Amino acid sequence: MRAAVMYGAGDVRVETVADPKPRESTDAVVRVVSSCVCGSDLHLYRSMPAVPEGLPMGHEFIGVVEDTGWDVTGLKSGDLVVAPFSYADNTCALCREGLHTSCPEGGIFSGAQAEAVLVPHAEGTLVRLPVEEDSALLPSLLTLADVYTTGHHAAVTAGVRPGKTTTVVGDGAVGLLAVLSARRLGAERIILMGRHTGRTDLGRRFGATDVVAERGPEGIERVRELTGGEGTHTVLEAVGHLDAYETAVGVVRAGGVVSRVGVPQYEQAPIGFSTVFGGNITLTGGPTPVRSYIEELLPDVLEGRVEPGLVFDRSVDLERTPEGYRAMHAREALKVLVRP
Amino acid sequence: MRAAVMYGAGDVRVETVADPKPRESTDAVVRVVSSCVCGSDLHLYRSMPAVPEGLPMGHEFIGVVEDTGWDVTGLKSGDLVVAPFSYADNTCALCREGLHTSCPEGGIFSGAQAEAVLVPHAEGTLVRLPVEEDSALLPSLLTLADVYTTGHHAAVTAGVRPGKTTTVVGDGAVGLLAVLSARRLGAERIILMGRHTGRTDLGRRFGATDVVAERGPEGIERVRELTGGEGTHTVLEAVGHLDAYETAVGVVRAGGVVSRVGVPQYEQAPIGFSTVFGGNITLTGGPTPVRSYIEELLPDVLEGRVEPGLVFDRSVDLERTPEGYRAMHAREALKVLVRP
Repeated sequence: MRAAVMYGAGDVRVETVADPKPRESTDAVVRVVSSCVCGSDLHLYRSMPAVPEGLPMGHEFIGVVEDTGWDVTGLKSGDLVVAPFSYADNTCALCREGLHTSCPEGGIFSGAQAEAVLVPHAEGTLVRLPVEEDSALLPSLLTLADVYTTGHHAAVTAGVRPGKTTTVVGDGAVGLLAVLSARRLGAERIILMGRHTGRTDLGRRFGATDVVAERGPEGIERVRELTGGEGTHTVLEAVGHLDAYETAVGVVRAGGVVSRVGVPQYEQAPIGFSTVFGGNITLTGGPTPVRSYIEELLPDVLEGRVEPGLVFDRSVDLERTPEGYRAMHAREALKVLVRP
Repeated sequence: MRAAVMYGAGDVRVETVADPKPRESTDAVVRVVSSCVCGSDLHLYRSMPAVPEGLPMGHEFIGVVEDTGWDVTGLKSGDLVVAPFSYADNTCALCREGLHTSCPEGGIFSGAQAEAVLVPHAEGTLVRLPVEEDSALLPSLLTLADVYTTGHHAAVTAGVRPGKTTTVVGDGAVGLLAVLSARRLGAERIILMGRHTGRTDLGRRFGATDVVAERGPEGIERVRELTGGEGTHTVLEAVGHLDAYETAVGVVRAGGVVSRVGVPQYEQAPIGFSTVFGGNITLTGGPTPVRSYIEELLPDVLEGRVEPGLVFDRSVDLERTPEGYRAMHAREALKVLVRP
């Protein structure tokens, strides 16, 4: 089959690789219907050292079950499914608590920008979709694999609810879907920090009440002006760079919560008296346990009450995946759908 | 009046200073009945640069109201009161939310290791005690000013409750009262990390089920062994040094909460993918809003169901306050009561 493989920063190639086959009795093979490029793929696209063997790319996909191991009884060939970006057994203590990203049997998919994917723990991982594979809802359903559930995780862990003000740091797909999620959970005031008008316009459509284009200290000052000097109760950090973290702690209200869902591109950061401790700021977030959220989020997508798929503003054939990376890297595209 | 004044690391003197008088209509003057030395005083005792003017010390006290400004109507001369370590108006939005340490009118007391204290916002700050000033309950009531409410804040913000396991990092007065608080909130498994047997024995009396004397990587390994490799759902960090933070994030379970109440002696710390983000760890805590907790904690103290005053293992006259600092610094005393 054909698959996108990264060989180093800026070097994505589409190649012929071995077809996946079930290896364990709990595996399935899924033929990919649609996949996409993630902001976290871009972190690699910008910084990955060259590797001779290459790294199969992609962890978000909707597809059709083609083959299953002996122990997979809840899925059958022909089922249309969405996969969380990480697989998990969905039976261990951590999964039962809704923390699928910490499942000891789990791992993050790679190789979904391809014609087919091998899915470990298929029954614990895949969720059947009650639509046809040519449904117009597919882009929105695909966001359940990562970006929508990530934005939702930010809003849930931050404790967004009616009466709480929210700042969203970052106007990428996750930031915009954090806006949508905060709105869905009842936030009335949602300040979106981003400077790309096309993106922040979509943010307004998703529910942002204010847009702050300034960055750094000016951006912090602007959010504080908008909130009577106080900052917002909750801040959803959807970037992952240190300056975004510093902005987040700069705009959070005393006693408030910063939830990080952008994968941190740093290890050390300020959490001392003047930044986090003194104001009783809570820092939360992490990789979203997608599997625990899909059932809750699916009905609104199926019934059209939310349209998270609007974050896709470009679509490429699998053979043109490298072009998708280039466009997202250059910020010409917000999020690129890949169709085998 | 006489008062303890710090002139630099290791240099505490008891001197004659001006008597406090009400300056604002909302002030009161309180004659001190008992005060004490705090772990945070010790941070200064170890590191404060020499200053010519000196720093009045002490922020925990029980006393008798002696004089009040015109606008203080809820308190009268002769009332026995306990003061939170920080004063606050108790009427602003942040106070009403229970975040008195962020009150714009607030501040931290200094000068309570003295014969009397000037109390701003007296009515919002002081809480009357229904006992006499020679009550045997006074040491326990004095812990409400800081160390008991700090331990309680750690347990509350961490979400300690029945079914949740807890590790307490640190066997100082706050750590031991974090144990007591975790027990009071229903934690069944409480692992106390500390290596001073006299203190950890008191920790067991307060409710610790396990004691881990090892520190650093060995201590982390030991807690993980005790918890089937997982760590505990909640960790209460009651020290404030970076190694205690690193221990805390080392022993917390995936999806768990680290609450810091030891004043951080660092600004930068690891919060990246491998330490905090990847496991969806929440970091919370901060200075305890004492005033919001006293009503809840007072009945158990008055009725003898808890005895937090057991953390006091030495008492000195005000004139011998420097000896109290020396004994705590040398770890000969856990916490020293000061009586004018």
